[in-house]
Amino acid sequence: MKSICAVAGVEAGGTREGRFGLALIRASGNAAGVFTTNIVKAAPVILMRERISRGRLSGVVVNSGCANAFTGAAGLEDAHLMVETAAEAMGIEAEECGVCSTGVIGTRLDLPLIASQCREVGPRLARSPEAESAAARAIMTTDTVEKHALVEAGGIRVAGIAKGSGMIAPSMATMLGFIYTDAEIPQAALRDSLRRAVRRTFNRLVVDGDRSTNDTVLITATGEAGRVNMSRFDSAIEEVCRSLAIQIARDGEGATRLIEVTVTGAPDEEAAAQVARSIVASPLVKTAVYGGDPNWGRVVAAAGYAGVEFDPDCISLWCGDGTRREPLVTAGSVVPDRDRAKALMAGDRVVFELDLASGEGRATAWGCDLTEEYVEINGRYTT
Amino acid sequence: MKSICAVAGVEAGGTREGRFGLALIRASGNAAGVFTTNIVKAAPVILMRERISRGRLSGVVVNSGCANAFTGAAGLEDAHLMVETAAEAMGIEAEECGVCSTGVIGTRLDLPLIASQCREVGPRLARSPEAESAAARAIMTTDTVEKHALVEAGGIRVAGIAKGSGMIAPSMATMLGFIYTDAEIPQAALRDSLRRAVRRTFNRLVVDGDRSTNDTVLITATGEAGRVNMSRFDSAIEEVCRSLAIQIARDGEGATRLIEVTVTGAPDEEAAAQVARSIVASPLVKTAVYGGDPNWGRVVAAAGYAGVEFDPDCISLWCGDGTRREPLVTAGSVVPDRDRAKALMAGDRVVFELDLASGEGRATAWGCDLTEEYVEINGRYTT
Repeated sequence: MKSICAVAGVEAGGTREGRFGLALIRASGNAAGVFTTNIVKAAPVILMRERISRGRLSGVVVNSGCANAFTGAAGLEDAHLMVETAAEAMGIEAEECGVCSTGVIGTRLDLPLIASQCREVGPRLARSPEAESAAARAIMTTDTVEKHALVEAGGIRVAGIAKGSGMIAPSMATMLGFIYTDAEIPQAALRDSLRRAVRRTFNRLVVDGDRSTNDTVLITATGEAGRVNMSRFDSAIEEVCRSLAIQIARDGEGATRLIEVTVTGAPDEEAAAQVARSIVASPLVKTAVYGGDPNWGRVVAAAGYAGVEFDPDCISLWCGDGTRREPLVTAGSVVPDRDRAKALMAGDRVVFELDLASGEGRATAWGCDLTEEYVEINGRYTT
Repeated sequence: MKSICAVAGVEAGGTREGRFGLALIRASGNAAGVFTTNIVKAAPVILMRERISRGRLSGVVVNSGCANAFTGAAGLEDAHLMVETAAEAMGIEAEECGVCSTGVIGTRLDLPLIASQCREVGPRLARSPEAESAAARAIMTTDTVEKHALVEAGGIRVAGIAKGSGMIAPSMATMLGFIYTDAEIPQAALRDSLRRAVRRTFNRLVVDGDRSTNDTVLITATGEAGRVNMSRFDSAIEEVCRSLAIQIARDGEGATRLIEVTVTGAPDEEAAAQVARSIVASPLVKTAVYGGDPNWGRVVAAAGYAGVEFDPDCISLWCGDGTRREPLVTAGSVVPDRDRAKALMAGDRVVFELDLASGEGRATAWGCDLTEEYVEINGRYTT
């Protein structure tokens, strides 16, 4: 098993009927979550933000095809009913059942379909490669590949599945992540670890800069593998989240190249992250990467409007493919020959490293190039 | 005359050799300016920010083709030399000569070419339709049309020319505006009026969200038409700036439609502007407009992450063509039939009006749709 079913205590399953998928994951333990900061929150997000404060989950139900967002009081009632149906199918308490939705916004859930899918999946929950794959597939919308991650460290495992492929719309948008570990971790520590990991991974992921109404990451710690050194656990959860974030960036709508930007020498980590995100979000940088053009001017200008102080005369910039790199700017001076850098941009991963020479802060952000296909997908998509 | 030469005391001229244009505008009086907030500032911006504090200009020189940005101490020296050459050609003091550049970044100015262009244009400065047109043409880079505006109010005139067409790169980017009035206005009042007008117009213009190293707007008041009621003047300068901003939005790279977003019912004007800019900047909204799709979900979601508090259950949203409008969301409820709204999106101007029902703040922002051609232009462009 390459993903969540490798974690002791986790059973999964999923099904799909056209664009309507449903996944159930049963796993009992301390739990924590992070949610979209969009003011317009989907009904399941409103429900989960309240539920997660209890600090425990015994399972989650996730549907794709309908986001249950902008559906008012009726939508909130639907989310409650969905939870009850799923909890019954998994044989757990409704109060300990998490819920997420992704898909078209402004339409109501098809509760009869969800009920029949729960009845189908519930009895077949299992720990197997097929089961984790079925769950990962069931939550996909415009994703073109399943997204799995697994890390083993010091006798424990951390694993996750995710969906997200840029924002074909609030309608078909949403980043969802479901992380599991068999480590035994107190709820408060689990929450802190998740927040830190999300801040350094999913929050540094920019596909097109739009943020959805449904974004959610949940973690459950089954405890079946016993206690763990917390700093090892922190590294493991961050590695899982980073792997999923990069998979999402690679699967961005119309994307042909992963963009990775590492900023060093910033006043602090958050300042470095701000600059890295600004570069990765720039349509000019995204189109330059698409064109395989080491356009240092676009990178430097995007850094310049990130809201972080630095001295342009001292910066250095490199471009590479993740294994080799070539300088574009050295201590404020432009390197005249860019042919070697251009050669490193031919692959499916383009890495920019920018040294602001203003401190010790360091951070990495991820994104993807902007192509005609992105415009075509999103221009043609009709609500 | 439709533009700056209609203002008493303004003489203009321009020339171009391939992508290297040069404009001279002679006009003496109180002056003020606003400049890019990008940390990476071009040499002419560094020079002008210092010069404008004197509060007077007798003329400006503008070149296109080379931005004189990221050129270090040598670039600053070049800007000084350019000013001296231009001032001599216009017969004014170098200390009262403004300077702006736009074009490729990281390359030095061709000072011999600039000197020869100054010698060519200087003796031919004139007040004529041809002269103002030559100046407007000389400052264009990727612009496809000249941009002029003229407003008459209470016996005075305010006029301007501008360049800008989205950001084909920091390399060929930049928004420049040159505003003139024959009203007699004290320097401090002039500066305040310009800042207010820019805040409500150019600062609410989003073509692709990238901000250049060279953005500059300068105003000179010749005083030849005497005093003016300041509130009439404020309206006139705002109208001129708004007209130029809309012309820039329409001329966005690859754009087929102007997008205008008016947000009402916000806590205050700045909050309204923040939400309006967030909507106009969303790649999903921009592609939906390109596709002629009244995708209210994308508009609402972009409003939701603007950082302004409101209650999604109370908002209303309309879509129109500037003369007619149709509801998409009414007090939080989605209007089921969107065919009438869709019909209003077939033209070259698409207007969204969003009422947040949270106060009296109101603001408008402008942008353009995102098309395959934008990607093509910017992906193929090589430094």
